[in-house]
Amino acid sequence: MKILCFNGPNLNLLGQRDTSIYGNISLEEIEDLLRKRASELKVDFAFFQSNSEGSLIDTLQNEAPSADAIIINPGALTHYGLSLSDALRDARLPVIEVHLSNIYSREEWRAKSVISPVALGQISGLGWQGYLYAFEHLTEHLRKGA
Amino acid sequence: MKILCFNGPNLNLLGQRDTSIYGNISLEEIEDLLRKRASELKVDFAFFQSNSEGSLIDTLQNEAPSADAIIINPGALTHYGLSLSDALRDARLPVIEVHLSNIYSREEWRAKSVISPVALGQISGLGWQGYLYAFEHLTEHLRKGA
Amino acid sequence: MKILCFNGPNLNLLGQRDTSIYGNISLEEIEDLLRKRASELKVDFAFFQSNSEGSLIDTLQNEAPSADAIIINPGALTHYGLSLSDALRDARLPVIEVHLSNIYSREEWRAKSVISPVALGQISGLGWQGYLYAFEHLTEHLRKGA
Amino acid sequence: MKILCFNGPNLNLLGQRDTSIYGNISLEEIEDLLRKRASELKVDFAFFQSNSEGSLIDTLQNEAPSADAIIINPGALTHYGLSLSDALRDARLPVIEVHLSNIYSREEWRAKSVISPVALGQISGLGWQGYLYAFEHLTEHLRKGA
Amino acid sequence: MKILCFNGPNLNLLGQRDTSIYGNISLEEIEDLLRKRASELKVDFAFFQSNSEGSLIDTLQNEAPSADAIIINPGALTHYGLSLSDALRDARLPVIEVHLSNIYSREEWRAKSVISPVALGQISGLGWQGYLYAFEHLTEHLRKGA
Amino acid sequence: MKILCFNGPNLNLLGQRDTSIYGNISLEEIEDLLRKRASELKVDFAFFQSNSEGSLIDTLQNEAPSADAIIINPGALTHYGLSLSDALRDARLPVIEVHLSNIYSREEWRAKSVISPVALGQISGLGWQGYLYAFEHLTEHLRKGA
Amino acid sequence: MKILCFNGPNLNLLGQRDTSIYGNISLEEIEDLLRKRASELKVDFAFFQSNSEGSLIDTLQNEAPSADAIIINPGALTHYGLSLSDALRDARLPVIEVHLSNIYSREEWRAKSVISPVALGQISGLGWQGYLYAFEHLTEHLRKGA
Amino acid sequence: MKILCFNGPNLNLLGQRDTSIYGNISLEEIEDLLRKRASELKVDFAFFQSNSEGSLIDTLQNEAPSADAIIINPGALTHYGLSLSDALRDARLPVIEVHLSNIYSREEWRAKSVISPVALGQISGLGWQGYLYAFEHLTEHLRKGA
Amino acid sequence: MKILCFNGPNLNLLGQRDTSIYGNISLEEIEDLLRKRASELKVDFAFFQSNSEGSLIDTLQNEAPSADAIIINPGALTHYGLSLSDALRDARLPVIEVHLSNIYSREEWRAKSVISPVALGQISGLGWQGYLYAFEHLTEHLRKGA
Amino acid sequence: MKILCFNGPNLNLLGQRDTSIYGNISLEEIEDLLRKRASELKVDFAFFQSNSEGSLIDTLQNEAPSADAIIINPGALTHYGLSLSDALRDARLPVIEVHLSNIYSREEWRAKSVISPVALGQISGLGWQGYLYAFEHLTEHLRKGA
Amino acid sequence: MKILCFNGPNLNLLGQRDTSIYGNISLEEIEDLLRKRASELKVDFAFFQSNSEGSLIDTLQNEAPSADAIIINPGALTHYGLSLSDALRDARLPVIEVHLSNIYSREEWRAKSVISPVALGQISGLGWQGYLYAFEHLTEHLRKGA
Amino acid sequence: MKILCFNGPNLNLLGQRDTSIYGNISLEEIEDLLRKRASELKVDFAFFQSNSEGSLIDTLQNEAPSADAIIINPGALTHYGLSLSDALRDARLPVIEVHLSNIYSREEWRAKSVISPVALGQISGLGWQGYLYAFEHLTEHLRKGA
Repeated sequence: MKILCFNGPNLNLLGQRDTSIYGNISLEEIEDLLRKRASELKVDFAFFQSNSEGSLIDTLQNEAPSADAIIINPGALTHYGLSLSDALRDARLPVIEVHLSNIYSREEWRAKSVISPVALGQISGLGWQGYLYAFEHLTEHLRKGA
Repeated sequence: MKILCFNGPNLNLLGQRDTSIYGNISLEEIEDLLRKRASELKVDFAFFQSNSEGSLIDTLQNEAPSADAIIINPGALTHYGLSLSDALRDARLPVIEVHLSNIYSREEWRAKSVISPVALGQISGLGWQGYLYAFEHLTEHLRKGA
Repeated sequence: MKILCFNGPNLNLLGQRDTSIYGNISLEEIEDLLRKRASELKVDFAFFQSNSEGSLIDTLQNEAPSADAIIINPGALTHYGLSLSDALRDARLPVIEVHLSNIYSREEWRAKSVISPVALGQISGLGWQGYLYAFEHLTEHLRKGA
Repeated sequence: MKILCFNGPNLNLLGQRDTSIYGNISLEEIEDLLRKRASELKVDFAFFQSNSEGSLIDTLQNEAPSADAIIINPGALTHYGLSLSDALRDARLPVIEVHLSNIYSREEWRAKSVISPVALGQISGLGWQGYLYAFEHLTEHLRKGA
Repeated sequence: MKILCFNGPNLNLLGQRDTSIYGNISLEEIEDLLRKRASELKVDFAFFQSNSEGSLIDTLQNEAPSADAIIINPGALTHYGLSLSDALRDARLPVIEVHLSNIYSREEWRAKSVISPVALGQISGLGWQGYLYAFEHLTEHLRKGA
Repeated sequence: MKILCFNGPNLNLLGQRDTSIYGNISLEEIEDLLRKRASELKVDFAFFQSNSEGSLIDTLQNEAPSADAIIINPGALTHYGLSLSDALRDARLPVIEVHLSNIYSREEWRAKSVISPVALGQISGLGWQGYLYAFEHLTEHLRKGA
Repeated sequence: MKILCFNGPNLNLLGQRDTSIYGNISLEEIEDLLRKRASELKVDFAFFQSNSEGSLIDTLQNEAPSADAIIINPGALTHYGLSLSDALRDARLPVIEVHLSNIYSREEWRAKSVISPVALGQISGLGWQGYLYAFEHLTEHLRKGA
Repeated sequence: MKILCFNGPNLNLLGQRDTSIYGNISLEEIEDLLRKRASELKVDFAFFQSNSEGSLIDTLQNEAPSADAIIINPGALTHYGLSLSDALRDARLPVIEVHLSNIYSREEWRAKSVISPVALGQISGLGWQGYLYAFEHLTEHLRKGA
Repeated sequence: MKILCFNGPNLNLLGQRDTSIYGNISLEEIEDLLRKRASELKVDFAFFQSNSEGSLIDTLQNEAPSADAIIINPGALTHYGLSLSDALRDARLPVIEVHLSNIYSREEWRAKSVISPVALGQISGLGWQGYLYAFEHLTEHLRKGA
Repeated sequence: MKILCFNGPNLNLLGQRDTSIYGNISLEEIEDLLRKRASELKVDFAFFQSNSEGSLIDTLQNEAPSADAIIINPGALTHYGLSLSDALRDARLPVIEVHLSNIYSREEWRAKSVISPVALGQISGLGWQGYLYAFEHLTEHLRKGA
Repeated sequence: MKILCFNGPNLNLLGQRDTSIYGNISLEEIEDLLRKRASELKVDFAFFQSNSEGSLIDTLQNEAPSADAIIINPGALTHYGLSLSDALRDARLPVIEVHLSNIYSREEWRAKSVISPVALGQISGLGWQGYLYAFEHLTEHLRKGA
Repeated sequence: MKILCFNGPNLNLLGQRDTSIYGNISLEEIEDLLRKRASELKVDFAFFQSNSEGSLIDTLQNEAPSADAIIINPGALTHYGLSLSDALRDARLPVIEVHLSNIYSREEWRAKSVISPVALGQISGLGWQGYLYAFEHLTEHLRKGA
C-alpha cells in the first residue's frame, strides 16, 4: 500500500509564511512526521512539493499508477487549478484535501475549492495534524476495502 | 478538560438514512466510540442531538460555560442556522465542524456553511472517523495551550 | 395504507390569517374534510401542525416508518427549511407539497421552495382543495404500486 | 360553462417522450379522460395542442371570449413564452397551469415559470391526474362564483 | 419611400386588453391614423400584425427589400425575440421600437429589450401617438438622408 | 393598551456576549427598564425570550390577540426567520424591530432583514435605548390613533 | 398651461460633444425650436440646464408648482440621480424623459434609467426631435385631461 | 456640546411630499421641535438642508470641527452618496442616520444605504420622532463618554 | 441511413446577411454541397429551414422517426428555443449543432446555447464547412455503431 | 502646454483625513509641489478642488478648451460620478486618474472606477507622488505627440 | 504551409482517462492520424503536449513565427488559461479550438472557454475526428487566402 | 538596497505584441532603462521574466530574502494567479503592480486583479514609464523608511 502526498505553491516556505495563520512547523518537519507514521503503519509513502501546477500534474501522472491514495494540500491552486483537479479525477484514487488554516473563515475567494468535488473528503484548519488524520483515514479506508 | 459534541437535525437516524452517503453506523455507536476515546484520554465528554435549532442553542448555552471545546455536526443547519452560529461564536470555545459526507461534492447549496466562519476547523467526508479526529485534535489543541 | 399530513408555521391560524390570500376555512375544517375522505377511501390518516421545524421533524421521524405517503404544507419553512427537507428525503415516502395560495404570484422570495426537489409533486394556489387532490393522488399512486 | 385545455410544444408526443419522466399515457388519452369528466360534470370542453406559440395565442384569443376557464400545460414555453403569458393575462379567465413532471426537481432552468404569475394555481408532478384536478377545481371555482 | 409597421403578439386585441395600461384605441384605428398620415406625407405604408415570431420574420424578410424604414411594437417578443432582433438587424433599415405603455415602470422583466440594441431609437409610454412620432421621425430621417 | 416585547436567539446571554458589540447590560436589566417605563406610561407590558423560532411564534400567536403593539429584537432570526416574519404580519399590529448593534456596519449577511418589510420601523445600533425609543414611539403611535 | 424642460450635466456642450453620437445641434438651438413650438401652441415654456444635480432639484422645486408638465434629459444623472428622481416624483406632474442617442445600444450601464420609473414615457435615440415629440405629447396629454 | 442635523435632497418639501409616506409635518416644524429639545437639554444645535451633495459636504466640513455629534437624514443620497459617506467618516463624530419612512418596506433600491456603514446607528420608519430619539441618544452617548 | 439538416430563423437569407460575419454562400448552395456529399456517401438526406420554432418542431417530429441523425443550425433560437431543445431531446438521435460564425467571440448572449446540452457535439466558426464536417462525423458515428 | 489638476470631494481635508490611509500631506502642499514641477518643466498649470460634482464639471468645461491634459483624483466620485466621467470623455484630452491609497486593497466598492474607462492611465496607492508621476507622464506624452 | 497542434494538461493520458467521456484513442494515435493527413495534404506539421501552461506558451512563442495556423485542445486550461489565451492572440494566426467531449453538456464550469474569443472557430464533442476537421478547415482556410 | 522586477507571461514578446496597445518598446529596452536608473540611484537591481507561474514563484522565493522591494507586471496572471499573489504576500516586501496598458478600459475581465490586494500601489496605462515611476517610488518609499 502506498500513499502520495502533494503540496502546492508556496508550501515549501511553511514556517516562514505568516505564522499566525500557518503555524511554525516547516514542510520538512511535516514530511518527517508523515514518514514516521508511514513506517509505523507499514505503508509506503512519497512526498512532493512544487510551485508549478504543471510539475504537480507530471509527478501525479507518474506516481499514481503505483499508488493507492493521495493526500493533497493544493495551496492557492485550490481555487483555480482545474487542470490539477482533472489530473486527480483521472488518477481514480481516493483523495483527501488538506488545508492548514480554515479556508472558510478567511477571504471569501478562499472558501471555494475546485479540488473538493473530486475528493473523498477535506480537512481544513487543523494545522499539520490534518495531514496525519488524512494519512490515518486513507490507511483505514484502503484496509477495509471501501 | 471537557469536550461537548453536538449533532443537528436528522442525525439521530444515522444508519437508517441513505447509507450510500452516510454509512451504516448509528449515532449511538459514534457516541460510544467517542466516549471510549474520552475515557482513554481522560477527558470529560457530553453528547447531544436535537432536531430543533432552539434546543441545540439552549443546551449549548447551558453546557459551554463548563466546557473547553466543541465538536459539532450541524446537519442541514450548516446552511442556514445563523442563530446556532451566533451561539457558537458567543461560547468562545474552539469549535470543529464535522460532516460525515463531503459536502463539497454534493448539491451546490450544501457547499456553503454558515458555521465554518466561527470554527477553528472543519472535517468533511471522512465518515464517523471525522468525529474522532476532531476529538483528538481538540485535546491536543487544548493541552498545548494554543 | 396510511397518509400523514403535516402543516408548518402559522397554518394553525388559517381562517384568521389574511383571508384575501388564504381563504376563510380553518385548519380544523381542512383536517375534518381530509379525515372524512380518508374514511371513505379506507385510508388511515394522521394530521399534524407545529410552528417549530424541530417538532415537525421529530413527528415526521416517528410517524414515517408506519406510513405510506406524506402531504405537507410547510408554510414559510418552504423557503429555508433545509432540515425539514432532509427529513422528508430520509423518509423515502412519496411527498406532495401543498400551498393554499399561488406562491408564484406573490413576493419573489416565496417562489423558491427547498422542499419541492424532494417531492413527487406540488399543488399551489388551489386553496384547501389542494389537500384533497394530494390525498387522492397519493392514494391512487400507492394503489397502482407506482 | 366552458373550459379550455391548451397544450404546448412536444406534448403531442406524450407516451413516446421519455416515459420515465412523462409516463405512458398519450395526449389523446388525456383528452378522452377530460372529455368524459366534462360530460359527467356537464361542462363544455375544448382541447388544443400546438408546437407554435403563435398558434396557441391565436386559438386562445379566438376561444377565450366564449369560455370560462383555462387549463394549460405550456411545455417548454413555461420558461420563456412571455407572449403566451400576456395572452393568458389578457383573457381575464381563471387559469391553472399543469405539468406532468415535477418541474422543481429537474434541471434548474425548468424551475422558473413565466406563466405562473398570471395563473390562479399550478399543479406539478402529479402526472395526467393533474389535468383532472385542475378541471375539477375550475368547475368548483366557477360554480361557487369565486 | 415606404415605411413598414410591425406589431407583435396580442396587439391585435388592443382596445380589449387592459385599458388602464394600453388605452381604448384599437389596432385598426392606429393603422388608420398611420395610413392617413402616410397619405399626407406621400409615403407608402404597410401594416402587419402576427402572434407568431416566425410569421413576423417571414413578412419582414419579404417586405424589407422594398422598404426604407421600420416601426415595430414587438409586444412581449421585446423581451426574448432574438430571432426577430436578428431579422431586424439583417434588414439594415432604420428601426424605431414603439411601446404603448412605459415598459420601464412595470414588471422588472419588461424593462429589458432585446430589440433596442438594433434600433435607431425607442418610444415608450406615449400611447398610440408613439407610432405617429416614429412615423414622422423616420420620414424626416430618410428625407434628410441621415 | 398592551405592548409585547420579543427577543430571539442568544439574547438571553446579553451582558456575557461580546460586550464590545452588545454592551454590558443584561436582558433582565432591559426588561426592568421597560417595565418601569411601562408603569410610568400606564401601559401593560409583557416580555419574552426564546432561542427557538417555533416558541416565539407560539407565544406571539397566543399573546397578540390581547395586545396592541410589538417590539422585537429577532437576533439572528432577523436574517432567515421567514416563519416569524409571517407570524408578525399575521398579527396585524404595529411592530418595531430593534437591534442593539448597527447591523449595517458588520458582516454583509447581517445587513439583510426579513423582518423589516413587515415592520412599522427599525432602530439599529442605539443599544438598549433602542428598546425604550421603540416603546415610546409605539405608545404615541397608538395614542394618536395612527 | 406651462411646460418645463430640464437638461442635465454636459448637455450645455451639445454640438461640441461627440457629434457622431449626439449630432451637431446646440442646446440653444433646441431651446429656440421648443420656444417657437410653445409659442405656436400657446403654451408657456421654461428651459433649464445645469451640471449639478442639486441645482436641477432646486429649480424643479421652485418651478413645478406653477407648471403642468416636465420634459427632462437627465444626461448621465439618468443612471444614478435618485435625488432627481425623487424630486420628479414629488412634483406630481407628467414627465417625459428624452435621450438624444439610443441609450439601449451603447454601454451596458447606460441602459438602466433611475428616472423612467417616475416618467409617463421615454423617447430615446430620436435626436433633438425627441424634445419636440415630448412637447407635443404633453400638450395633447394635458389638453385631453388625461 | 453641539449636535448638527443635516437633511438631504427634497426634505425641504416635507409636508408637501407624499404625505401617506412622509407625514404632514414640515421640516421647519421638525427643526423647531429639535431646537426646543436642544434648549431643554442645554445642547447647542444647528440645522441644515440642501439639495446638493456638494453643499452638504461643504457645510459638514465647516461645522464638524466645532461639533460633537451628527444627525443625518440623507434623503435619496442614502443610496449613492459615497462622497457624503466619506465626509461623515472623515468627521470622526458619532452619526445617527434617520429616515422618516421605513426604507426596508419600500422599493428594493431604498433598502441599501451607503451611509449606515459609517453610522453609530440608524432609525427608520418612526417619522419625525426618529430625529428626537437620535438627539436624545447622542446626548446620552456623549454625556456618558462612550 | 438518413440524416436531417435543420436551419433556424434568418438562415434563408444567408449570402445576403452580414457577409463579414456569415460569408457569401447561400443556404441553397450549402444544401447542394450537402446533397452531393450525401449522394457520394450513399446517405439519404433532407434539408429544412423555417423562421418559426413551431414549424421546425412540427417537421422534426414528423421526420425524426425515419431518420438516424440530425444536423442543426438553430440561428438565434440557439439562445432561447427551449421547445426546440426538448424536441431534439425527444427525438433520441445524435445531433450536431453547427454555427457559421464563432458564437463565442461575438455578443455575450450568443455564447449561451440551450441546444448544446442535448447535442453530441458542436461546430462553431468554421463557416459552411461546419455542415460538411458534421455530416461526415454523423455518418462515421452511425456506421461504427457508436 | 497646460495641464489641469482636479480633486474631488473631501480631498480639501487631506492631512486631516485618516492619515494612516492618506498620509500627512495637505492638498495645498501637493498643489505647491505640482506648481514647482510645472515651473521647472515650463508647463502651465491650474489646480482645482470641489466637493460638488456639478462644480467640477463646470470648471472642467471652462478650462478644458485651453488645456492639453488632465490629472484627476475624483475622490468618492470615482465610484458613481458618471456625469464627471462623461465630462472627461467630452473634453477629449488625455486624462490620468490618481488615487493616494490603493483603492484595490480597501472596501470592495472602492475597486470599481467609472472614471478609468475614459482615462489614459491610472496610478493608485503611490501617495502624493502619484500626482507627480502623472504630471511627468502627461508632459512626456504630449511632447512626443502621442 | 505549417500547422501546429497543441494539447494541454492531462491529454497525454488519453485512452486511459475516463473512456466513457474521452474514448479509447491515445494521443499518440491522434498525432499519427494528423501526421498522415498532413503528409497527404503536403502540409508541415508539429505536435505538442504539456501539463504546464508556461511550457505551452514557451513552445507557442517559439513555433508560431514559422507557422501558419494552430489547432489547440487546451484541456482544463480552456477555463482559466488567460496567459495561454493572450499568447494565442499575440501569435496572430488562425486558431481552431478542439474538445473531444461536448463541453456544453457536462459540468457548468466547463461551458465557459477563455480561449474561444481568440479562436476562428471551435469543435466540441466530435471526438478525435475534431482534430482532423480542424486540420482540413485550416488548410482550406489558408489556401483560399481568407 | 535591492529592487526586483518580475514580468509575467508573454511580456518577453513586447514590441512584437499588438503595438497599438503595448507600444514598440521591447522588454530588453525596459530592462536597460531600469538598470540605468538603478545605477544612477545606486540601487541593486534584478530583472526576470517567465511564462510560467511556477517559475516566477520559484525565483521570487529565492530572490525576495535578499531584496527590499518588488515591481511586477504579472501579464494575464493578474487575473487568476492566486499562487503568485500568495507568494508576493509571503515575501512581505512593498510591491508595485505595473500594467503597460490601462487594464480598466479594455475587456471587462482585465479590470479584475488578484494581485492588487497585496500591492502597495498600482500603475496602469502609462506605458514603460510606469516601470520607472514604480522604481522611483519604491526607492523613495524605502529611503524614507515608510
